[in-house]
Amino acid sequence: MSALPDIDAVRDAAARIAPYATVTPVLRNATLDALAGAELHFKCENLQHGGAFKFRGACNAVWSLTDEEAARGVVTHSSGNHGNALALAAATRGIAAHVVVPEGAVQAKLDAIARAGGTLHRCAPSQAAREAMCAEVQARTGAALVHPYADARVMAGQGTIALELLRQVPALDALITPVGGGGLAAGVAIAAHALRPELALFGAEPAGADDAARSLAAGTRVTSVAPDTLCDGLRALVGEPNLAALRAQRVEVITVSDAEAIAAMRLLWSELKQVVEVSSATVLAAILGQPGRFAGRRVGVVLTGGNVDLDALPWFA
Amino acid sequence: MSALPDIDAVRDAAARIAPYATVTPVLRNATLDALAGAELHFKCENLQHGGAFKFRGACNAVWSLTDEEAARGVVTHSSGNHGNALALAAATRGIAAHVVVPEGAVQAKLDAIARAGGTLHRCAPSQAAREAMCAEVQARTGAALVHPYADARVMAGQGTIALELLRQVPALDALITPVGGGGLAAGVAIAAHALRPELALFGAEPAGADDAARSLAAGTRVTSVAPDTLCDGLRALVGEPNLAALRAQRVEVITVSDAEAIAAMRLLWSELKQVVEVSSATVLAAILGQPGRFAGRRVGVVLTGGNVDLDALPWFA
Repeated sequence: MSALPDIDAVRDAAARIAPYATVTPVLRNATLDALAGAELHFKCENLQHGGAFKFRGACNAVWSLTDEEAARGVVTHSSGNHGNALALAAATRGIAAHVVVPEGAVQAKLDAIARAGGTLHRCAPSQAAREAMCAEVQARTGAALVHPYADARVMAGQGTIALELLRQVPALDALITPVGGGGLAAGVAIAAHALRPELALFGAEPAGADDAARSLAAGTRVTSVAPDTLCDGLRALVGEPNLAALRAQRVEVITVSDAEAIAAMRLLWSELKQVVEVSSATVLAAILGQPGRFAGRRVGVVLTGGNVDLDALPWFA
Repeated sequence: MSALPDIDAVRDAAARIAPYATVTPVLRNATLDALAGAELHFKCENLQHGGAFKFRGACNAVWSLTDEEAARGVVTHSSGNHGNALALAAATRGIAAHVVVPEGAVQAKLDAIARAGGTLHRCAPSQAAREAMCAEVQARTGAALVHPYADARVMAGQGTIALELLRQVPALDALITPVGGGGLAAGVAIAAHALRPELALFGAEPAGADDAARSLAAGTRVTSVAPDTLCDGLRALVGEPNLAALRAQRVEVITVSDAEAIAAMRLLWSELKQVVEVSSATVLAAILGQPGRFAGRRVGVVLTGGNVDLDALPWFA
């Protein structure tokens, strides 16, 4: 298996996940268009099965396994949405899902993983601890690792968003996704550019976890960033293959402050009427913070998830 | 003009508002289906222009005026969403909108009316005070009154929801809307039964403003109910023609407590990822509170609006 998917892999993924995934709607809003000075087409992956785009990649990975592999289950580490997605995807095939979760993950997301039938394994909130615990579970159960982003099957699954969005809104000029580990950003960039090479591609990253922006600027993967952001879905360091894809597809990464992301989240709730996570709102924050880059353009805006703790909204923090 | 619209009036309304209104999506959710033991099809009027279904009726009324009538503007009284809708509808025709608002209306809704270009006129929070102020503005300006619900043009506009929903989901068994003044409930009932006479029709009403339920039980309009509910969109007494329509169409009204409505609102936010008002959530509360009536059925559920003060969420009250 190659480190990066191509457009055929994305097309195969689309066929594989079609029986299980939701074709999410694209919403428009006049107030937000006026604020942005652009035509915004919001791809609502908060309405995806499990409340986040992650189901696409997880589902593609689960249904890419042979029957023999599948019988031993799957394992991953995730701060929440990918774990939930993998548990849901495993349930569609009737196999076990082990999810390693760092201390400090959002409780609502852990509850969802358990409800979906996933087995939780807790670890310290570091990349090293996650990977060690994951390896241990893998050794014990023989489960197949489905990495949250540095996995070609996962990237191909996330890339199906671009296929779907460009079918729903063919005439886009630009497309923006959040950037965490880079599974979504890489998959979407590869698929979008295969279909529309002239499309301008953007990523939005929290300033407190700006390793992708730094890595692209430095020309090499910067691993020294200690994530410090409310955007819990975007704390992961960008993966090595993911970074390579962002570079190859000339994705421009825009950083936003947590305050900008929270303000954009409120706008998405109050105007678009969508419950989205603060990580999701980074894309609107980036557009509003850099109006020159988007003015007058038709922009596809991927809203990644809506799994929020309604008792801990960031504007009350 | 007759007191109640017929299906032709609803079809005319659909054609009249088509250039301005949004064809709102219908959303499904596996978790809510499982909770309800039914197949729920949520018609998302929180995604309508102005954030509520009210735009349909207001827009139909505004575009039903002759040029001469329209030149003198329109006037109404409204606790919020209808006023906002009328201001937005008036703006589509470039005419003035006067909105009489009771003290205590939700600030976010008043702000929206002003932003839409409406002129606010404040009055005491009683039906009598609203009507007196409305009459005064009407006498002074010559503006045409567009009553929020006891108006055949408004009911016809709201009824377009049923046309649209039955086109999107033809095989419904039942349909439920909230009941306030009854403009939505009457318009939808008339249109739905004209197309599908066997459809079971339900209304959801807050127990603290249960005048429609009492009126249907008593066989005569009960006007003694003093509204005491958080559901600010449903405090109006059901109109005389509206009640006649509910009776003629055999709409069964189910009452729910404010606590049940708040719990259902949280479910719609956390599971369906839709920002909806507590008034909107009465429909899900009614379904969950009366499972026997809906079990195993395909139910159209009208979510009426999403204009919420994000700083004053009811589960923090």
